[in-house]
Amino acid sequence: MENSTRERVRDIAAKLFAEKGLAGVSLQEIAQATGVDDAEVTKLFGSGEKLYEAVLETHFTLYATRMDAVFGGDEGPADKVELYAHAMCDLHKQAPHFFPLFYRELLNPSLFFEPIVKKKIQHVSYLSDNNIAKGIQKGQFKRGLNPANATMFLAGMFHYYYLARHLRGSLLPEPANEEEYLNQALKVFLTGLKKGAEANITGQAL
Amino acid sequence: MENSTRERVRDIAAKLFAEKGLAGVSLQEIAQATGVDDAEVTKLFGSGEKLYEAVLETHFTLYATRMDAVFGGDEGPADKVELYAHAMCDLHKQAPHFFPLFYRELLNPSLFFEPIVKKKIQHVSYLSDNNIAKGIQKGQFKRGLNPANATMFLAGMFHYYYLARHLRGSLLPEPANEEEYLNQALKVFLTGLKKGAEANITGQAL
Repeated sequence: MENSTRERVRDIAAKLFAEKGLAGVSLQEIAQATGVDDAEVTKLFGSGEKLYEAVLETHFTLYATRMDAVFGGDEGPADKVELYAHAMCDLHKQAPHFFPLFYRELLNPSLFFEPIVKKKIQHVSYLSDNNIAKGIQKGQFKRGLNPANATMFLAGMFHYYYLARHLRGSLLPEPANEEEYLNQALKVFLTGLKKGAEANITGQAL
Repeated sequence: MENSTRERVRDIAAKLFAEKGLAGVSLQEIAQATGVDDAEVTKLFGSGEKLYEAVLETHFTLYATRMDAVFGGDEGPADKVELYAHAMCDLHKQAPHFFPLFYRELLNPSLFFEPIVKKKIQHVSYLSDNNIAKGIQKGQFKRGLNPANATMFLAGMFHYYYLARHLRGSLLPEPANEEEYLNQALKVFLTGLKKGAEANITGQAL
């Protein structure tokens, strides 16, 4: 019973922190939204900051666990890029507060940025980076490409899509549908990476 | 003289709003940081909100003007994509507060989101969209690609790079250098778009 109250408080807190940031939400507001009293929330989590830490920890652990599964499989590098993209979309559906919590931490890093946010993002970046490097080694992706750059723009394709959701619908004449966007972004990315599609990529080439 | 005080107040306000958002900055704080008194700031701008509006207006007008120049030229579609990318980097150097102001508006839209932010972003998106559509018509870019999607992931490649600056340096084994990142991202994007590099792109193809 206490466990489910704990989860309920954490879920409602996640929504409020995603909407307003750590500084914008009081423990009283969370207690009120959950329908328990302040003393109960304090007993369960200690403080608003500790509750925020629990929210970040849950979300970033979920993210890292999903990505461990993606990059830990037996598929080839290009297939893993596709699995990564689909996992990002699933994550957005399963944990819609993950993305805003992450962007708020990028704009206003809290005390937990280094130990939670950066640590987990770094972990997943290394996994993606190694995957791209393996594709280059195997001769599937272009030589000269910096895997760190490829990871950055692969991530950017998806993060900006979520960040710009407010703009979608009226921003462009034919609003992007999620599945179409995902498939076309992946196709452009993988074609762009493919060896033989064009000469080597180097930083100086343009 | 009054004009230069006005600009000085606006520039310092831009920095503070970029760091803390509209709700996080008081008129007193801006006055203090500028070294003028509150009454002078109020006389010049009317209120903190009006000052914020002036900051957004200046930044988003600069952005739209730069992009009008990029997309209004005689270059071909692929060259315009390159010019766009370089203009984004220049803008970041010339007006470093533009990006955080934009991201804060995406996370917490103010009263000025619709009339300023969305209006200008929409304007530039149409320009990019038309440019991609022209590339498809000319047979340079793949058929079946939704120009709105291409604009979205082109923008994402750059926005996430700036958004993730906090993470750069220690996030990946070989931290991306700005020029190298720009050139490689462009190369992947343009190769991915190029007709003939692979079969047609459709939303269903993967």
